Amino acid sequence: MDVRPDGPVILLAPDSFKESLTAAAVCAAMEAGFSAALPGARFVRVPMADGGEGTVQSLVDATGGTMLTATVTGPLGDPVEAAYGILGDGRTGVIEMAAASGLELLDPSRRDARLTTTYGTGELILACLDRGVRRLIVGIGGSATNDGGAGMAEALGARLLDAAGEPLARGGAALAAVARVDVSGLDERLAQLQVDVACDVSNPLCGPVGASAVYGPQKGASPADVAELDAALGVWAATLRRDLSRDVADVPGAGAAGGLGAGLLAFTTAQLRRGIDIVIEQTGLRELVASADLVVTGEGRMDAQTRFGKTPFGVATVAREAGRPVIAVAGSVGDGIEDLADAFDAVLPVVSRAAPLAEVLAEAAGNVERTCFNVGRLLALSI
Amino acid sequence: MDVRPDGPVILLAPDSFKESLTAAAVCAAMEAGFSAALPGARFVRVPMADGGEGTVQSLVDATGGTMLTATVTGPLGDPVEAAYGILGDGRTGVIEMAAASGLELLDPSRRDARLTTTYGTGELILACLDRGVRRLIVGIGGSATNDGGAGMAEALGARLLDAAGEPLARGGAALAAVARVDVSGLDERLAQLQVDVACDVSNPLCGPVGASAVYGPQKGASPADVAELDAALGVWAATLRRDLSRDVADVPGAGAAGGLGAGLLAFTTAQLRRGIDIVIEQTGLRELVASADLVVTGEGRMDAQTRFGKTPFGVATVAREAGRPVIAVAGSVGDGIEDLADAFDAVLPVVSRAAPLAEVLAEAAGNVERTCFNVGRLLALSI
Repeated sequence: MDVRPDGPVILLAPDSFKESLTAAAVCAAMEAGFSAALPGARFVRVPMADGGEGTVQSLVDATGGTMLTATVTGPLGDPVEAAYGILGDGRTGVIEMAAASGLELLDPSRRDARLTTTYGTGELILACLDRGVRRLIVGIGGSATNDGGAGMAEALGARLLDAAGEPLARGGAALAAVARVDVSGLDERLAQLQVDVACDVSNPLCGPVGASAVYGPQKGASPADVAELDAALGVWAATLRRDLSRDVADVPGAGAAGGLGAGLLAFTTAQLRRGIDIVIEQTGLRELVASADLVVTGEGRMDAQTRFGKTPFGVATVAREAGRPVIAVAGSVGDGIEDLADAFDAVLPVVSRAAPLAEVLAEAAGNVERTCFNVGRLLALSI
Repeated sequence: MDVRPDGPVILLAPDSFKESLTAAAVCAAMEAGFSAALPGARFVRVPMADGGEGTVQSLVDATGGTMLTATVTGPLGDPVEAAYGILGDGRTGVIEMAAASGLELLDPSRRDARLTTTYGTGELILACLDRGVRRLIVGIGGSATNDGGAGMAEALGARLLDAAGEPLARGGAALAAVARVDVSGLDERLAQLQVDVACDVSNPLCGPVGASAVYGPQKGASPADVAELDAALGVWAATLRRDLSRDVADVPGAGAAGGLGAGLLAFTTAQLRRGIDIVIEQTGLRELVASADLVVTGEGRMDAQTRFGKTPFGVATVAREAGRPVIAVAGSVGDGIEDLADAFDAVLPVVSRAAPLAEVLAEAAGNVERTCFNVGRLLALSI
């Protein structure tokens, strides 16, 4: 490129590099590299996310918000310290359900989709309400649960009763016995809370492509468990339809996170949206792109899947709409990367040598910096 | 860069990527990548080398010459098929001593610096003479030998005799008994043969930084062998001084390749020069750079050692002298690469992911192509 005499404005909008760098750390490494090559350049750092792991951290970093933690009920009842965030506007909360109810909180030997609960996710929502948030962003990837959001509903004040009027046990299997949902004690603040759920799947709650069948097995469900859980979620959906007048079972995404999608739809004002769209909106990325000369994004890995809701593709789409050049810096690139040539001006892996993953992860910051230095030097060339 | 409307001329001048791609194959992969990104670009391919492994192939490829083979005497007497080349001018031969007398021809268990001979290297020179060459380029890296070039001299017609007038046995240790060198039978064509030896070391023949002490151990010499061989090379040097009136022992590089440097200096018109300088001259690189808009070089690995006689640094120096931008594409980059920022506009590793060396080597062509595609796209950006 011809570098503008007054220095180009470079917008840095990467996702985190999984297992090595937060998105803010990627921004810092990118800026270090570019600024060494292009001393006059100015930078706008926008740590990004796509609704998956790292979304809380990135949105807090991007908006100058606050990271907080709450002690909540883990997926099998043990207490867990769960991080959540209040964004820089002071009125938007952001949580990841996996922080309270995630699969990675359980040793593989303890995973049991029949018993795991989203109760802790409900407690995280309460923690946000107690902080005065009026808007909530919920990332729902990585769940250990298959309870249709029943645990969350209970934490928020709903009562789940069996035919004898007794409270249900927690976990998805117990929902087979649900006879009544009493929302008279539901937290009143929920009615005023705008909830955006970052959801990139379109599974319904039940059936062959529902929560239990598709995601149950990775949470420890046997084929028999899947059948039992699918039937239990059917009872749950029928009860919600009758007692809350909410018909959510077939909404695309109702089956996300073991049916937490359905629960959020039934008990809150939730809208299910693509995670990257929520983050683009929340960070004001479109407006920032309009004032940038170059957009730089990236992620730990880029490949044929990058088109499907991943941060770099979302950022590239915004950049393309604004007519801005956009490049990506990736921890590694995989099959299908050549098919992204229409979306990106360049996609550069940062790896420096043949090495095992652990070493490559440890070198990530230096590799990102060196790659951006090289890109800056190439951009400055005039031939 | 602003790409010239009539299409930039890109000069491709990489070394080979060791164990994966010849320099010509690197050129082809580079051109595939650049031409996809810059459809109007024109290319000049100059496979390069630095006098080390691959020099014969690269110079043959660069000049449109011919690869040939000869059956010659291996380092321990077994016949070996050794490749050599006649360049496109039909009058310049190029050999690598390692093809006839190299360490890699011997299983580690058979390495014996006392017995190994450069006889086969002399036979390769004869093969070139038989093809009518008037100029010879000799790469001397990777030797298995410590015979001061005595075997080569014998192959070329010299007679090495002991005090009883009997021919010496082959190998460096036998030189302790050399009493006379008779050059009356030396091939007469040698006097008219211009010999350029690619030599990047400055070791003298004998002493603590001589051939035996520095390079003997890696060829199988024990400390006692080193002392014996060093003394034997001293006798050899004294004999050459007396019988040939050539005082070569202290010429920088005389100790290269187990003293083959000294032998070439004594028995031929050899000049010892940096390998990359010979290749730059032979390929006409300076003239080609003058008509190029961008110079692209590279090697399998680049690091702090690249400054010391390696192809990319030599190419970069030529490009810098001509005021041309120069970038390098490397199989991998290592420590100290940041110190090359003055010499190169960019140094880009091609690795795409964390992976073991064997996989990275197998993917080299695709990785080079993808990297050059990205570079081309970046060069075409205007922001």
